[in-house]
Amino acid sequence: MTTTTAELDALADAAAAAAPVWREADAATRASWLRAAADALDAHIDELVAIADEETRLGETRLRGEVGRTTGQLRLFATAVEEGSYLELTVDDADPSAVPPRPELRRTLTGVGPVAVFSASNFPFAFSVAGGDTASALAAGNPVIVKAHSGHPRLSQRTAAVVAEALTSAGAPEGSLGLVEGREAGNALVQHPLIQAAGFTGSVGGGRALFDLASGRPDPIPFYGELGSVNPVVITAAALAARGEVLAEGLVASFTLGVGQFCTKPGVVFVPADAGFEQLVAAAVAGAKGGALLTDRITAGFPEGIAHLEADPSVAIIARGEDGIGAQPVVLTTDAASVAARPETLLEECFGPVTLLVRYSSDDELLAALRAVPGSLTGTIHSEAGDDVNAVLAVLERKVGRVLFAGWPTGVAVTWSQHHGGPWPATTSLHTSVGVTAVRRFLRPVVFQDAPAHLLPPQLRDEELARLPHRRNGVLRVP
Amino acid sequence: MTTTTAELDALADAAAAAAPVWREADAATRASWLRAAADALDAHIDELVAIADEETRLGETRLRGEVGRTTGQLRLFATAVEEGSYLELTVDDADPSAVPPRPELRRTLTGVGPVAVFSASNFPFAFSVAGGDTASALAAGNPVIVKAHSGHPRLSQRTAAVVAEALTSAGAPEGSLGLVEGREAGNALVQHPLIQAAGFTGSVGGGRALFDLASGRPDPIPFYGELGSVNPVVITAAALAARGEVLAEGLVASFTLGVGQFCTKPGVVFVPADAGFEQLVAAAVAGAKGGALLTDRITAGFPEGIAHLEADPSVAIIARGEDGIGAQPVVLTTDAASVAARPETLLEECFGPVTLLVRYSSDDELLAALRAVPGSLTGTIHSEAGDDVNAVLAVLERKVGRVLFAGWPTGVAVTWSQHHGGPWPATTSLHTSVGVTAVRRFLRPVVFQDAPAHLLPPQLRDEELARLPHRRNGVLRVP
Repeated sequence: MTTTTAELDALADAAAAAAPVWREADAATRASWLRAAADALDAHIDELVAIADEETRLGETRLRGEVGRTTGQLRLFATAVEEGSYLELTVDDADPSAVPPRPELRRTLTGVGPVAVFSASNFPFAFSVAGGDTASALAAGNPVIVKAHSGHPRLSQRTAAVVAEALTSAGAPEGSLGLVEGREAGNALVQHPLIQAAGFTGSVGGGRALFDLASGRPDPIPFYGELGSVNPVVITAAALAARGEVLAEGLVASFTLGVGQFCTKPGVVFVPADAGFEQLVAAAVAGAKGGALLTDRITAGFPEGIAHLEADPSVAIIARGEDGIGAQPVVLTTDAASVAARPETLLEECFGPVTLLVRYSSDDELLAALRAVPGSLTGTIHSEAGDDVNAVLAVLERKVGRVLFAGWPTGVAVTWSQHHGGPWPATTSLHTSVGVTAVRRFLRPVVFQDAPAHLLPPQLRDEELARLPHRRNGVLRVP
Repeated sequence: MTTTTAELDALADAAAAAAPVWREADAATRASWLRAAADALDAHIDELVAIADEETRLGETRLRGEVGRTTGQLRLFATAVEEGSYLELTVDDADPSAVPPRPELRRTLTGVGPVAVFSASNFPFAFSVAGGDTASALAAGNPVIVKAHSGHPRLSQRTAAVVAEALTSAGAPEGSLGLVEGREAGNALVQHPLIQAAGFTGSVGGGRALFDLASGRPDPIPFYGELGSVNPVVITAAALAARGEVLAEGLVASFTLGVGQFCTKPGVVFVPADAGFEQLVAAAVAGAKGGALLTDRITAGFPEGIAHLEADPSVAIIARGEDGIGAQPVVLTTDAASVAARPETLLEECFGPVTLLVRYSSDDELLAALRAVPGSLTGTIHSEAGDDVNAVLAVLERKVGRVLFAGWPTGVAVTWSQHHGGPWPATTSLHTSVGVTAVRRFLRPVVFQDAPAHLLPPQLRDEELARLPHRRNGVLRVP
């Protein structure tokens, strides 16, 4: 099903009409709307998970957990709206004695207006209709129009219906959440004059095309895309010697989780040469299950991606997981010199349960290969207390948005401090779709100079200002 | 003079080499570098102002004031670096009891890397080599390469030499501040692989071309441009009746300030029809001086812009200022219905001492015309206590970044709360080149998961964290 131009226009008009209501809703009201959406998802979890499982084959356990993450996100953003720091309230009192005299300035952030959200194949809840982009756009005070993912159309429709109904029942205006379907409608959405910003999670190709449309508008809009990531992991010789088997099992569990379809999947692992890690991984992967991939396109792309890697003379397949329905886990190897020489070939993200072990024989070899790694969401270091990993860390932290120690990158805690982003092609922007600062992407500053108090937005009037975190004359104050 | 490709590469390499030093410098050190730059500008003010006056004809008084603003900006950013909020330090402690167990996450902002800054014709100091973009990029911990404006090449060279020398004398690395000249070098600069972000102040045409180059890179970078703004002003009938003469004099002083070459010049003024404001403005402008415009291009563009407006059948020239050297101040009129019908013609920014009075006969006419106004830096309301300006304010605050009451938009206080921005075409981005949050444009988040304390950036270790504003487990804390 494809949304027509007239249908999109109607949705956009409704969103534009709803925008002032969202923007001007007080914190308690807006937070209650977010919580109503979360409560409705919880109330419909059985029905929604059943549809999601039919469409994505991700399994009930994973999908129930993902609903929990999704409702948790909505509730965390509700808390952030109530806490009020996200408004970045800043007041400088007038100073008539300054030369020139300084006026009173009162600054707040305010919603940008209707936001387009493109849902992801691999997270039918947490990065889709009611996912992090939608939750943060609503929290910032903006209606949302979601482009449904073709991999889960019925779930998209049903989720949108459940959430839209919950929002209006809680008192939010019609037009708070719309849904469009079809690639052409998605392209039209990001170019629609009433849309003020877009959030996206998906492939480099799809994200780049939409980024170019957003940037190419007569009035460019910000396009916050999360595209592709190989998530480099570095294992030191000491870590391997101390806990090789545990690391091999951890790696296999992480790269096969969700049938290797997480954006934070460890796709390239730098390991000391000739230290036996390949054998440990081979043993660990032997019993690992694959599974059905999300869509026909991803199913077709998986063997193509492996064939593309295998065509490189340095690459060998060293182990496979259990043969069963769908994609079989695969472990490949190459060497650091080849990675440094041919990063475009060897460091392209391959969606699905595959990882590439990269042998290094010296720190110099390791660093040269690491420098060739493209921007990623995460970078992981497994080291021991005696290791000097400063040089590795210095390279990694320029490449990624999250640096992990002694863990695995899959599993992204949704918290105040979380950052899900990284240099291109991990993301198109400095900001993130996970963690509380995601709201900032959908806010713009406005400052009021010498305004009569009754014309100020309520949060900028002295009495409400005093109840919220704010900065006055340069001093940050917490009530 | 044009910078060659080899010269640009050398500057970019030097900036990239300097980047880690800037990024890792502690707050006191980085602040001292900014203050050293400010001190050096003060020490060389006579020499610099003399060159600037020869090249821009802006006059000594204005130029000395602008140096003061420029050094004030550098010192304000130094204060902000020391205060530390700009790092947005956020820590969530580990929670092993959570399902799944939550790791420790520590988040900071960090410099993006070398920044390109395009200087402006109309602010040879405050928006040029050592202006707001440069100051905020340095404060964020990034080296800068400036594209000199062709309107003041000698000043650009000399300012860059003074500041670069001050920085290195204060201990900053070579490569902290570079300078390129020539349009081709500017285009190459924004596309250079080592450049991570760009700041720009200039025309819509020039800004759009550079924005497209930045967005079209294989790895797009953020382009923070301030382009064009007509800065609408609304005068109510009551305000006009109460203080018409003062308003006319204030308007003339504001639109002729700096020979009408401020980005915040009031370019379009909505006035009650048949209430005598035109006559008051005509009287006020009669004695107003024009002056030489900044560049040959602006000099040629001024009569072209007026002719373009005058070609509209609704437009009449109603008054002119003194005839003298350079551009003569001009006041035009039209009506609100024509503005609503032909905004592309009537609401195009015209650089120089010209303003357009727009007669309105009803609130509906006023609101319809206001809705046609393009995004602007500022919007101004002159009203009396009894006026209901809510509808006007609701339209204006969606169009502009700063709403003023009972003042004039020229003159931009540099403070914590200031915002210099607005929807396209006022700016290409949500952020601003004036005010402390300008630093955020040149920072990116990085989060450390379960990192050993000695591998964390110092500001994320418990002892230093406690001395800085930070959020821990959701609670904002000020030391």
